[in-house]
Amino acid sequence: MTFQFPIRVYWEDTDAGGIVFYANYLKFFERARTEWLRSKGLEQRMLKETTGGMFVVSETRVKYHRPARLDDALLVSVNFAQSGRSSLWVEQQALAMSEKNTQLVLCEGSIRIGWVDATLMKPARIPEIILKALK
Amino acid sequence: MTFQFPIRVYWEDTDAGGIVFYANYLKFFERARTEWLRSKGLEQRMLKETTGGMFVVSETRVKYHRPARLDDALLVSVNFAQSGRSSLWVEQQALAMSEKNTQLVLCEGSIRIGWVDATLMKPARIPEIILKALK
Amino acid sequence: MTFQFPIRVYWEDTDAGGIVFYANYLKFFERARTEWLRSKGLEQRMLKETTGGMFVVSETRVKYHRPARLDDALLVSVNFAQSGRSSLWVEQQALAMSEKNTQLVLCEGSIRIGWVDATLMKPARIPEIILKALK
Amino acid sequence: MTFQFPIRVYWEDTDAGGIVFYANYLKFFERARTEWLRSKGLEQRMLKETTGGMFVVSETRVKYHRPARLDDALLVSVNFAQSGRSSLWVEQQALAMSEKNTQLVLCEGSIRIGWVDATLMKPARIPEIILKALK
Repeated sequence: MTFQFPIRVYWEDTDAGGIVFYANYLKFFERARTEWLRSKGLEQRMLKETTGGMFVVSETRVKYHRPARLDDALLVSVNFAQSGRSSLWVEQQALAMSEKNTQLVLCEGSIRIGWVDATLMKPARIPEIILKALK
Repeated sequence: MTFQFPIRVYWEDTDAGGIVFYANYLKFFERARTEWLRSKGLEQRMLKETTGGMFVVSETRVKYHRPARLDDALLVSVNFAQSGRSSLWVEQQALAMSEKNTQLVLCEGSIRIGWVDATLMKPARIPEIILKALK
Repeated sequence: MTFQFPIRVYWEDTDAGGIVFYANYLKFFERARTEWLRSKGLEQRMLKETTGGMFVVSETRVKYHRPARLDDALLVSVNFAQSGRSSLWVEQQALAMSEKNTQLVLCEGSIRIGWVDATLMKPARIPEIILKALK
Repeated sequence: MTFQFPIRVYWEDTDAGGIVFYANYLKFFERARTEWLRSKGLEQRMLKETTGGMFVVSETRVKYHRPARLDDALLVSVNFAQSGRSSLWVEQQALAMSEKNTQLVLCEGSIRIGWVDATLMKPARIPEIILKALK
């Protein structure tokens, strides 16, 4: 039940080391999570307007194994791991094809996402419609 | 003969004004130019390795007409405008669909791209294979 | 009456060409404009809260002359050029020291900034207190 | 023996939630680490040229406690934690002043930095001059 989203590496993503700047994998992971939510009918701007709440990232743990380079075509995965009252964890990977056509893990991370009241920016209970859609 | 490339707006693209941060349209334009080049068989990392040269942006003129927001689905266009010995101009637009299903221009720009020797970072004559592919 | 602000080049600013990614000069220009406004007593978050308006960039024209690299120490200048009812132009440069200790222009631009109602995102008359502070 | 570096929040750092985009704390941490290295006589471009090696981030663990906003003046700290043959850990915090003039931790992280051969991008032994300078 892994969701995968394709991401291409552009100049904007690289640094003077010739590789993708490590902070940008958090952007890649977020794009994939956004599309994963959208694939379940959850669009974030609409969620904010209808529930008054929003997801915010509260913790990230990322390991960088191999570099990606300009023009590389990556796949970024999303796996729902577990959820509590007001936050959930997802596991993510950025994958590339090797020359032997097997998938190589470039980078992997665990991301904790909290649900907050968008006005107060305080933790709030994740709405049932969201939890149902994710499970 | 307009090339168009779809771009989705994510959190990373927005700022505290609630809209896409204006500098990021240069990233959107670049992604579209890269895919336009790729559609013509020109991949930039390979160009650098085979010719020793690379494109660098030498001038940008951009007008911002209407804001884009989180989750918006944009189309970014590329039109080849003219070329000289060592540089070329492209015209680009970021477009959104209006509620009446007509395309709205959010942002438009003229981008001048120079060809340089990648080691010396000095202007060089654009290789014939590139000019042929673009015309 | 040129305002100057120092900016250091970090990994985040560079790309795989080994130089500062061109779109990032717009960020450098904006940091310098923000500090120029602050030096005149104009803090943008406070302006928004007290006047209900905000500055938005409506046009940029930038020429890139020479590349900056990792660890370079730049000076970014701001010159007020002219103002109308609801927008103003500033001229900006990113400068580096040459080996002979003269200033080299790496990049220069004209930036048009419009004043908008922050809720409607529509052009509005620039408040007098701002025009007075800038002149 | 904590090193601290001041960082101001600009538009480029924020997102449509009105706060600093979480991935950007990795940039803030990196700026502070770069200045910490520089304060010890270690400039990264020069290190690459003289040793053929470079630091790359191999793991990040970051917790986000409170949001920062436009115009906020932060302090970012760096503490050397421990080092092995080819990598080291640093502990970092992004701090803001509270209304009562005490420091609030907005975000904290542990960053693992590996030393690699810049050509092969393979782990290599951290040069003695670096370890001596850091301890």
